[in-house]
Amino acid sequence: MKASQFFIRTLKEAPADAEIVSHKLMMRAGLIRKLGAGIYNYMPMGLKVIRKVEGIIREEMDKAGAVELLMPVVQPAELWQETGRWDKMGPELLRIKDRHDRDFLIQPTSEEVVTDIARHEIKSYKQLPVNFYQIQTKFRDERRPRFGIMRGREFSMKDAYSFDRDVEGMKVSYAKMFDAYTRIFQRLGLNFRAVNADNGAIGGTGSQEFHVIADTGEDAIAYCPSSDYAANIETAEALSLIASRGAASEAMALTPTPGQVKCEEVAQFLKCSIEKTVKSIVLAVDQEGGAKLFLLLIRGDHELNEIKASKVPGLTDFRFATEAEIIEYFGTPPGYLGPVKTNKPLTIVADRTVANMNDFICGANQEGHHLTGVNWARDLPEPIVADLRNVIAGDASPDGKGVLEICRGIEVGHVFQLGTRYSESMNAVYLDEKGQSQPMVMGCYGIGVTRLLGAAIEQRFDDRGIMWPVTIAPFQVVLCPMGYDRSDMVREASDKLYQDLMSAGIEVILDDRGERPGAMFADWELIGVPYRVVIGERGLKEGQLEFQARTDAEASVIPVGDVAKKVTDLVKAQLAS
Amino acid sequence: MKASQFFIRTLKEAPADAEIVSHKLMMRAGLIRKLGAGIYNYMPMGLKVIRKVEGIIREEMDKAGAVELLMPVVQPAELWQETGRWDKMGPELLRIKDRHDRDFLIQPTSEEVVTDIARHEIKSYKQLPVNFYQIQTKFRDERRPRFGIMRGREFSMKDAYSFDRDVEGMKVSYAKMFDAYTRIFQRLGLNFRAVNADNGAIGGTGSQEFHVIADTGEDAIAYCPSSDYAANIETAEALSLIASRGAASEAMALTPTPGQVKCEEVAQFLKCSIEKTVKSIVLAVDQEGGAKLFLLLIRGDHELNEIKASKVPGLTDFRFATEAEIIEYFGTPPGYLGPVKTNKPLTIVADRTVANMNDFICGANQEGHHLTGVNWARDLPEPIVADLRNVIAGDASPDGKGVLEICRGIEVGHVFQLGTRYSESMNAVYLDEKGQSQPMVMGCYGIGVTRLLGAAIEQRFDDRGIMWPVTIAPFQVVLCPMGYDRSDMVREASDKLYQDLMSAGIEVILDDRGERPGAMFADWELIGVPYRVVIGERGLKEGQLEFQARTDAEASVIPVGDVAKKVTDLVKAQLAS
Repeated sequence: MKASQFFIRTLKEAPADAEIVSHKLMMRAGLIRKLGAGIYNYMPMGLKVIRKVEGIIREEMDKAGAVELLMPVVQPAELWQETGRWDKMGPELLRIKDRHDRDFLIQPTSEEVVTDIARHEIKSYKQLPVNFYQIQTKFRDERRPRFGIMRGREFSMKDAYSFDRDVEGMKVSYAKMFDAYTRIFQRLGLNFRAVNADNGAIGGTGSQEFHVIADTGEDAIAYCPSSDYAANIETAEALSLIASRGAASEAMALTPTPGQVKCEEVAQFLKCSIEKTVKSIVLAVDQEGGAKLFLLLIRGDHELNEIKASKVPGLTDFRFATEAEIIEYFGTPPGYLGPVKTNKPLTIVADRTVANMNDFICGANQEGHHLTGVNWARDLPEPIVADLRNVIAGDASPDGKGVLEICRGIEVGHVFQLGTRYSESMNAVYLDEKGQSQPMVMGCYGIGVTRLLGAAIEQRFDDRGIMWPVTIAPFQVVLCPMGYDRSDMVREASDKLYQDLMSAGIEVILDDRGERPGAMFADWELIGVPYRVVIGERGLKEGQLEFQARTDAEASVIPVGDVAKKVTDLVKAQLAS
Repeated sequence: MKASQFFIRTLKEAPADAEIVSHKLMMRAGLIRKLGAGIYNYMPMGLKVIRKVEGIIREEMDKAGAVELLMPVVQPAELWQETGRWDKMGPELLRIKDRHDRDFLIQPTSEEVVTDIARHEIKSYKQLPVNFYQIQTKFRDERRPRFGIMRGREFSMKDAYSFDRDVEGMKVSYAKMFDAYTRIFQRLGLNFRAVNADNGAIGGTGSQEFHVIADTGEDAIAYCPSSDYAANIETAEALSLIASRGAASEAMALTPTPGQVKCEEVAQFLKCSIEKTVKSIVLAVDQEGGAKLFLLLIRGDHELNEIKASKVPGLTDFRFATEAEIIEYFGTPPGYLGPVKTNKPLTIVADRTVANMNDFICGANQEGHHLTGVNWARDLPEPIVADLRNVIAGDASPDGKGVLEICRGIEVGHVFQLGTRYSESMNAVYLDEKGQSQPMVMGCYGIGVTRLLGAAIEQRFDDRGIMWPVTIAPFQVVLCPMGYDRSDMVREASDKLYQDLMSAGIEVILDDRGERPGAMFADWELIGVPYRVVIGERGLKEGQLEFQARTDAEASVIPVGDVAKKVTDLVKAQLAS
């Protein structure tokens, strides 16, 4: 393609609302343009990349035996009422009324519709397994859209749904998708990691997320470099840091700690390690006859993990307690709370590490005072024990194979063993060999298509711009003629090379816009085309052209006749790898 | 592809709400499934056809120099308020409120958004012309969706928008799109016609519709078989059927016509031709101080064209008059109205043909009576003359090159010279060579992608099912083995032919589902795959296979070794034509 037939518009500056590098570069390179909060136009250059990503996803999904279909963007509420999601989902579900005042929504995913298809179209075990997928526009009405298309409201997602006869079949379908995702992200040239996301209802490998590793990622991931263990920090299991509880060696003492509220402050004031301190967090659960309070204890240097807290029996729908509730239960305002001698009894839950501590320090339920030398059983009853904290770097890996490290990731894919959650509520059944009606066992599998662009850029950029891998670059090579409009020699050599590359099946763009060399180079470095060839009179007179990969520090000079083959070989090698 | 890896489900009966053949066949062949009123799932078989159609559209759009981008489905109301369409469009515009109670809509088209892009991205005449297109989901909240995806609510449309420096440039862009559309519909194998749709604001060829000719079409089209004149009946110009007015030869007479209200009845009662009668239609226009009434006159055998009526000066926002208004102006209730001696004066507009009539018959403004022998100038003042009626078969073509015929069509494309309607209201300007700010001159161009499937089927079916052209068939050839699972000979021959065809780049499906031959043949005839090869033991033993094109009445027998080449040649020839 010639640049004059395309639409290229780069910006010197990114808009003020672009916080992260991928958002800035996508705006500057003209890949996207904002239409509203979290709603973007995909400009021609950006759409080319999207189509490449879609192409790779389709190839691998098809290879894995999935079948593409397309479900509507606007869906009737009835199906969502059947599964209860109409009421359960919050304001992120964009609800609509049509001209007849009937309820509709814009799909955030399509479990209901695909299950509706399955219950109508699949009658017999002979039709199973089947895996339907689509690449379709989704909408989630994020309260605070940000990071460009990384956390937008309207986005494109590949969503797949497998239907099997039983759990064993589902696990096979799940494994196929896991493998397909691995190949997809490899072909996209990404540094990624599959992460355990939830060990909930279904067990072991019930749900895994694929994260692209990037410092700007919204998710923290705990992983073990010496095994393949990796989990979202929300769900990574934290073992006790203390193998077994030591004996009490100090007497419990009321110790003045005036103005020392945080554990760090207390430790510093008392000249002891923060690892001797215990943090008190008060949660409440509303129920008939007033809220029930829980006191959660974690070590002073640890962070509460709210997802884990919500899994403590009775805490599913917890909230943080109000100051009035705290005064009622502890007889003192927040700041010096602790588990010993509370005003009113409440349930005490200790993190695994806290449960093994001895001679520890906690608030005394008295302003300006802490208790030191506190010991379980002696000074207060044994607590309920649970995993309550976020793992930290250095924690033992739950698989026993090493020590955890923490990195940040961008979630770009999710595979999930759904089981019969949807098929049972929507009565999606098939007849088995014996003529018995059985619920289909489902899996679901998502990839954030548009988000992948941002994630890929977060991993591949420098101070000049984006560095696309060949597999998803908008163009594979750019030809930059020096004086296309004024030198016959340059124009003829450029056109010949252009034709040669086109004939070799290379996606080439010839920049015939007549820009100054500096502006032209800057544009293509910003846009991130992997290879550049500069065609100039001086070089041509010596039979040479300038070649530079986007990742090269400097250009190299190569004979005119070798350029087409060199570029073709490089591109084909990248595509094949 | 093997059928067992795909998803095929045909129905013996079409659902009761399928009125037209394309809707019935798309349901029966499993191309679509209804999710709600006017909202359909595109099943794998249907999506394959859609992707083919999209592919052809993209190729021709790209060839014509248009550049693809993608604009959001959910669009903020602000831009639509700028152009006034937010208020002007009726309930067919699906309006939404987001979680912050801000107004949004689902795009029915994208003039506002693309003009917003242009005003931000295009600064200089050097960037013009440009033509942006997208293939994207659209929504129109039709009051009465019907005909399957032919008049659905959610549908896929290719919409393009050209931006030019001036009207001459726009006409060039328009002509390119006209040519591209012609090639697209030719490649889709359609019998179609470009039809003048509106000679309004911009003149001559301001707007043309592309119609697929089909008896089930919702639009009536007037065309001249001996020239290229064609127009939607709503806009086709009707010339006077009487070259010049004859002299008055009868005296005007009040004639009793008891109970004879319609022109046919009056003509029969008075034993004269209906062509002597004139029909009176009373329209009203609301204005300050009460409605203003108009009396429109057309010949008894003609039909009022409301679009033409609305173009009569003063009638832009007409409505039909109420009975009370009619009594006030004519002194009698409807039934015997006429232009002579009304109770109150009103504006009289005669159709061109009526204006040239003499000795005509019309209502007498007196119950049970008509006037005969009425003549202009003598019995009543000369009227305002306008083209008010629908053309009928036999009318002279407005281009003077023959006589009109009427057919029915399905609108599948529309090209439109927009001019500066959007660029002026949204201030989309560029700087010309002199640094002067100028509004961009726009055109817009739509193709109903999903509707095209229905339209193609309406032209290509028989009692067994669909007959796709090779260019958009879901598969080009189907292999039907007789006993794939029980005969090694059949399986090996089928697999070899399958591989040979795949290697030749043919889109082949091998039916390995193990269906009975009758059911298998019926499925593929219903689905409409263009070529079928039957592989059976008996034939193989004689070195022969059975070949049948979907359009052939009978199968022919050809040597095994010739099949791959024959199919390949046929497919390639079709694709090239």
